[in-house]
Amino acid sequence: MINISFPDGAVRQYEQGVSALDVAKSISEGLARKVLAANVNGQVWDATRPITSDASLKLVTWDDNDGKNTFWHSSAHLMAEAVESMFPGVKFWVGPALEKGFYYDMDLGDRKLSDEDLVILEKKMNELAKKNNLFIRKEISKPEALQYFEAKGDEYKLDLLQNLTDGEITFYTQGDFTDLCRGPHIPNTGFIKAIKLMSIAGAYWKGDEKNKQLTRVYGITFPSQKELDEYLLLLEEAKKRDHRKLGKELGIYTMDDEIGQGLPLWMPNGTIIIEELEKLAKETEGAAGYKRVVTPHIAKESLYHTSGHLPYYADSMFPPMEMDGEKYYLKAMNCPHHHKIFGAEPKSYRDLPYRIAEYGTCYRYEQSGELFGLMRVRCLHMNDAHIYCNKEQFFQEFKAVNDMYLKYFKIFGVDKYVMRLSLHNPEKLGQKYVNEPELWKETEDMVRKVLIETGTPFIEVQDEAAFYGPKIDVQIWSIIGREFTLATNQVDFNSGRKFKLEYTTKDNTTDIPLIIHRAPLGTHERFIGFLLEHYAGKFPVWLSPLQVKILPISDKFMPYAETVMQQLKQAGVRVEIDERQEKIGKKIREAELSRVPYMLVLGEKEVAENRLSIRRQGKGDAGSQAVEEFVKNITEEILERRSAE
Amino acid sequence: MINISFPDGAVRQYEQGVSALDVAKSISEGLARKVLAANVNGQVWDATRPITSDASLKLVTWDDNDGKNTFWHSSAHLMAEAVESMFPGVKFWVGPALEKGFYYDMDLGDRKLSDEDLVILEKKMNELAKKNNLFIRKEISKPEALQYFEAKGDEYKLDLLQNLTDGEITFYTQGDFTDLCRGPHIPNTGFIKAIKLMSIAGAYWKGDEKNKQLTRVYGITFPSQKELDEYLLLLEEAKKRDHRKLGKELGIYTMDDEIGQGLPLWMPNGTIIIEELEKLAKETEGAAGYKRVVTPHIAKESLYHTSGHLPYYADSMFPPMEMDGEKYYLKAMNCPHHHKIFGAEPKSYRDLPYRIAEYGTCYRYEQSGELFGLMRVRCLHMNDAHIYCNKEQFFQEFKAVNDMYLKYFKIFGVDKYVMRLSLHNPEKLGQKYVNEPELWKETEDMVRKVLIETGTPFIEVQDEAAFYGPKIDVQIWSIIGREFTLATNQVDFNSGRKFKLEYTTKDNTTDIPLIIHRAPLGTHERFIGFLLEHYAGKFPVWLSPLQVKILPISDKFMPYAETVMQQLKQAGVRVEIDERQEKIGKKIREAELSRVPYMLVLGEKEVAENRLSIRRQGKGDAGSQAVEEFVKNITEEILERRSAE
Repeated sequence: MINISFPDGAVRQYEQGVSALDVAKSISEGLARKVLAANVNGQVWDATRPITSDASLKLVTWDDNDGKNTFWHSSAHLMAEAVESMFPGVKFWVGPALEKGFYYDMDLGDRKLSDEDLVILEKKMNELAKKNNLFIRKEISKPEALQYFEAKGDEYKLDLLQNLTDGEITFYTQGDFTDLCRGPHIPNTGFIKAIKLMSIAGAYWKGDEKNKQLTRVYGITFPSQKELDEYLLLLEEAKKRDHRKLGKELGIYTMDDEIGQGLPLWMPNGTIIIEELEKLAKETEGAAGYKRVVTPHIAKESLYHTSGHLPYYADSMFPPMEMDGEKYYLKAMNCPHHHKIFGAEPKSYRDLPYRIAEYGTCYRYEQSGELFGLMRVRCLHMNDAHIYCNKEQFFQEFKAVNDMYLKYFKIFGVDKYVMRLSLHNPEKLGQKYVNEPELWKETEDMVRKVLIETGTPFIEVQDEAAFYGPKIDVQIWSIIGREFTLATNQVDFNSGRKFKLEYTTKDNTTDIPLIIHRAPLGTHERFIGFLLEHYAGKFPVWLSPLQVKILPISDKFMPYAETVMQQLKQAGVRVEIDERQEKIGKKIREAELSRVPYMLVLGEKEVAENRLSIRRQGKGDAGSQAVEEFVKNITEEILERRSAE
Repeated sequence: MINISFPDGAVRQYEQGVSALDVAKSISEGLARKVLAANVNGQVWDATRPITSDASLKLVTWDDNDGKNTFWHSSAHLMAEAVESMFPGVKFWVGPALEKGFYYDMDLGDRKLSDEDLVILEKKMNELAKKNNLFIRKEISKPEALQYFEAKGDEYKLDLLQNLTDGEITFYTQGDFTDLCRGPHIPNTGFIKAIKLMSIAGAYWKGDEKNKQLTRVYGITFPSQKELDEYLLLLEEAKKRDHRKLGKELGIYTMDDEIGQGLPLWMPNGTIIIEELEKLAKETEGAAGYKRVVTPHIAKESLYHTSGHLPYYADSMFPPMEMDGEKYYLKAMNCPHHHKIFGAEPKSYRDLPYRIAEYGTCYRYEQSGELFGLMRVRCLHMNDAHIYCNKEQFFQEFKAVNDMYLKYFKIFGVDKYVMRLSLHNPEKLGQKYVNEPELWKETEDMVRKVLIETGTPFIEVQDEAAFYGPKIDVQIWSIIGREFTLATNQVDFNSGRKFKLEYTTKDNTTDIPLIIHRAPLGTHERFIGFLLEHYAGKFPVWLSPLQVKILPISDKFMPYAETVMQQLKQAGVRVEIDERQEKIGKKIREAELSRVPYMLVLGEKEVAENRLSIRRQGKGDAGSQAVEEFVKNITEEILERRSAE
């Protein structure tokens, strides 16, 4: 008998050679049907592989990343089986799982795959999956393995074998297909219930363009058709909501070759959104006792030696400008500049907490291949702030910051979010982490307490803190379920010392402040990119670049349209008239496409009654209102920053 | 008889050899008493010098720069006469007029001048001035001149003589003092009614530190004691109002060695002023139909080749950053970025005038010796905008811009301003100026017409336009009479072509837009520097970083103070409580010093009556008001951006 210990701390006895699947069955058949793999002593194994000594065991299902990984890797094998049955003599290179799905690189000789072939292959894979073929693991010696692939004349797998030694070579077989593979795999092909082959691409062998070009087929599979359908819908939706496409259509931003890559120019419509976000941040931060500052975009090299960013961070910074015999850098972060402002005037305990905020523009060097729309840029407008406080104030300050995140999530309809709390590793104090064991414990406890007290969903990660303190990475999901990493929220006990910041305590001694770095709205670039997708460009009224479009049915109604526009403008509403001599149907269609939330159709009846016929974008007719009524309603909607229903 | 023509076009006959002073006397004795010099055929002459042939004549008085120049240069001679009488054997180098006053460099041998000496010299100068000694001009041959100074052993004047030839050498004598001098001079010393010697400095002969150090005495003189008194008061006032001193005292901005010279860090108080100015600009520009944009602070080299700034403007730009094999520059102006935004989407006549504004931050390289507080910096936040319009729209657009300048002057209590209209030179079309004779004429006429119609004071300057169109430089005077050059306002027919900007006309052809560059509030840096001096740090309420300070007489009144503070905060007023346990007298004194416009003193009586005792900064007791009344009044004062009375 061996002892198997479970994640909840329970330990049970099983016969030697028991498999994870057996263990699952001993708990419930329902559970067993979900088990894709097993985490045995920290390693991911086949669920069917015998466990021969005492072990810790975690059953791995679709809900785990390891589960999805295993599932998609097995799906790659299933695809390979289908390909081999369709194209005998095909040779395979590697077929890994991806973040979403899998691919396999193959040498099809002179044959070219077509989109029609993918349909046939999908059908074949479905057939093979239904056979519930087991994935059978076989340990094999290197000579045997070499012999096998030499016999097949498979130079690709022979190449892979070169780097492997006896004892670490395994074959996996399902149905008629055998592959050199480290595993693990799902128990059998029957788990794969829904299959979609996405695309065909060329890929040079080993990524070297001097080598032969192989055919790469991308696919994705799911344990149910429903999940596949949802995924494909999401993809389609995400494509429609692509922030680059919407950003162009709606006049949000543009890029220009002569300005440079990753450097968006914000067009008038994008700038309105920027200014609404800044207004929100200023109001919120103002009410929370922040003061605002403005700092230059450059500083001398020595600042970044003081802060410790140089030379470690130099690769992410723009190259320096040499001037007056000194090097100047574009700032990649605002903290050092803010620390200088804290230090510019003597501080006492009365000045703490000292909170300074700035929508500071930073410049970071990203490889040009990494740049992507608004998501990866070189110019970042950060919703930045630094809070200087003492230990007694820390809990309250950190909680207030957390509350601010939650407040924003509510405003933007972000229902799904998680905070990833990165902690230090006590064994690495003095090396990877500042040697302040007490402060680490205190601040980590306080941060954890804040997250628990506020009911904020969070996960803890060991050994991933910043050098100077625990940090929180905030992940949010858009309405169509795509994940975005928004911003970090960091505790810092180190910069105060580096910048010689201090304050006079009540007892007339001096102390160094703790610092909180925070940026709840992240950067304009990423956040507006997120919002474009999240709202599919249909912004709530308060964020809409244009809020009302007045559509007079003909020129005759222009004077009334002008009167209505003036009343709305007076109330601070962003409004335009479509003055063109076009049919009202065309005016409505184009206004709908421009995603303006309210359209006011004005004709004979409206003028006579001094009323407005209202259309809501995407929802059609929204009844009729007197002008004053509409002005009152929309002003309220804007002031409350109401979400689109 | 000769013909003398006057500036008003009149021509009169006079006897040959008449002097300007004679002419003045022939007009009126009062006028003659004011004549300091004469402009004869474009050259400044002694008013007493005989005119021997037909000439154009302009009498030069104190109101002309040439008049002040002559007056101060003569004063330098007067000072030299006093010095020579006090220190026989002194030798003089040069003694020019300055923008304000004059100096003379002298070799006093081993003697050192003291401040007491200056008092004695002033007294001597006053004595000599009262003698009404004539300044007598004498043309002299070079040999004679050499002989004169050789006899005196005056190596300095001998050095000056080296570069002069016969026919251009003159001596001037007043009283016992004779000097080698080109002149001109005022008629006699009696014009000099008020004298102040300001300071003593050392100055190396010819500015070369290998040479002997001479003694330089600075002074200033006026035609009346009143003017001198006013000038000294202004100087004292300007010293008190020095924006660098006030900037530090009021927590407006700071500089830091690790950030770099000329790169202000805006502290919380300064940032409030920045944000109020930006709010004003956004409101004003929003109402005037401007859209806003945000552009990055860098661009590739090629942008500045397209714009034509490189290589001509390179010296004023920061050095480039080399990245991905390209050079990137910090932007020194926003125009090229704005042109790119205009060009990013197709435009039609319906889109014009297209007005885009940005508080864009630019970086300009100034020599470190040129940097001065906020007045000469390397980082400039510009109230920038560009208007793209057609020729028919130009007049209206330019007038609107001019009106905006005037509106701002009113808000900031700028009563004295002048616009300097720089025109092209038709002879330099195609070289110094774009070869568009019609456009030059049209736009210059329109600009002039706007200035005349709006009654804006302006002067015209020939041959000083920009390459691409006429421009206006705006000069304003602070309340203590110091001059600031604020911003330029330019017409541009050239950039549209360079950036290939175009729009579709009504006739479905394409045309290139005219562009107006404008920045009425200049840069934050210079404008806030100006405002600090203009208001002596006592900002009107709407601009004050702190608007109200609540001063409870003791802790007992803190709850009431809190209630009042909350009511004010609710109304958007910037308010603080002085919570310290200090005597009320000290609290008031310190609040006065901090220049907060309103102080609310709260004690027994105020709590009992639910009222406030109000003090106005610099004006003492301002009576008592109910809380609601005060909130209403101050809110109105802020909303109307009322000036401090």
